[in-house]
Amino acid sequence: MMSKEQQAAGSRAFTEEERRGVYRAIYERRDVRSQFLPQPVPDDVLARILEAAHHAPSVGFMQPWDFVVIRDAAARQAIYRNFERASRRAAEGYEGEQRKLYESLKLAGIVEAPVNVCVTCDSERPKGSGLGRKTQPMVDVYSSVCAVQNLWLAARAESLGVGWVSILDPEEVKATLGIPEAVTLVAYLCVGYVSEFGRQPDLEERGWETRSDVQSVVHLDRWGARAQDWPR
Amino acid sequence: MMSKEQQAAGSRAFTEEERRGVYRAIYERRDVRSQFLPQPVPDDVLARILEAAHHAPSVGFMQPWDFVVIRDAAARQAIYRNFERASRRAAEGYEGEQRKLYESLKLAGIVEAPVNVCVTCDSERPKGSGLGRKTQPMVDVYSSVCAVQNLWLAARAESLGVGWVSILDPEEVKATLGIPEAVTLVAYLCVGYVSEFGRQPDLEERGWETRSDVQSVVHLDRWGARAQDWPR
Repeated sequence: MMSKEQQAAGSRAFTEEERRGVYRAIYERRDVRSQFLPQPVPDDVLARILEAAHHAPSVGFMQPWDFVVIRDAAARQAIYRNFERASRRAAEGYEGEQRKLYESLKLAGIVEAPVNVCVTCDSERPKGSGLGRKTQPMVDVYSSVCAVQNLWLAARAESLGVGWVSILDPEEVKATLGIPEAVTLVAYLCVGYVSEFGRQPDLEERGWETRSDVQSVVHLDRWGARAQDWPR
Repeated sequence: MMSKEQQAAGSRAFTEEERRGVYRAIYERRDVRSQFLPQPVPDDVLARILEAAHHAPSVGFMQPWDFVVIRDAAARQAIYRNFERASRRAAEGYEGEQRKLYESLKLAGIVEAPVNVCVTCDSERPKGSGLGRKTQPMVDVYSSVCAVQNLWLAARAESLGVGWVSILDPEEVKATLGIPEAVTLVAYLCVGYVSEFGRQPDLEERGWETRSDVQSVVHLDRWGARAQDWPR
């Protein structure tokens, strides 16, 4: 690994292979639920992906995030029961074939993954002195989400899978982990080595949803003005 | 560049250099305001970073984002005036030396950067059928934030700088760009080649805020349980 000083060396262009690494992480990242292996994640590898998360952009350089690393089996069991209840309630919103499909999906690896990471946002943290937060108050939470995505991509480069579980009662998770009331739970992540990274997202492979064409989400200068010959 | 099929090839471990590329993008990414160059961003490069954004994780595979690419000078001028008003109002919240420092900071490259990209979230998009959004309804917006971070890191690998401007009235930006009322403005980004990437964040270099120690934001198993000998 490079030292932090080398990493911060600045403006040098990326080599072809370094650039390929960035795109590989982006395209081969998966939301992992089923493929976790029990093998432990070494502390130094975990520290690298958390340091990557800590170097996310943040509004006003506020760094509003915290990371609760959960290896304790009892805590993960409690959070898994929280997930089961939330998922059962969510299932009631679907009918027929879609309900059957929903119930057949594996939606969380909370217990199988050896490490879980809860990412939070402390909106009352004084760092940054409020810079950039007057017109869009939610941007502090967005900073914590950027930290999640840094962690996820660094994890892929380390051959670690990550799964984001949003089917949870966040206040219950906070109670389980002793997170103060004023702190917002942003993301609950399962982290571990995997048997494989899928060629496509689970939900695409299982027929829950298809990937849209990028052309359908790009507008030129004004909403609705489509690029007829957008490069592919 | 690899084809998308090669990119999706799956589980192969990263080479040392590919992995270095991922960490370089994370550590050398900057929130760029002052260093934009006027040289245009080719369509194929812009398309690559937008495709990277489009491959962000999304709750239920919802893909709730849109990207409005703004090159039009009049639109950028209008948005710059919006920024000036919002920044003047924000300045009133500071006093004395902090006010002077705030007013001396360059906080947006809206006009200097040749391209701006507005990233949105459409919470009413039916894709994903609501999966994962019952207990934490904000996760659709978080998906759009993950798209921002993918774009930002891919941009760094392409030697492109990105600056996120949150000092804007979002409803006014939406009116300027014709974005429907029901769609949420998530991020307003300035994109372009740069004279240099700073060795540290602008706000750190200018003395607005310091970087916290990662150890201060990592908790083990329970909030407040600190790692005494966390790897550095």
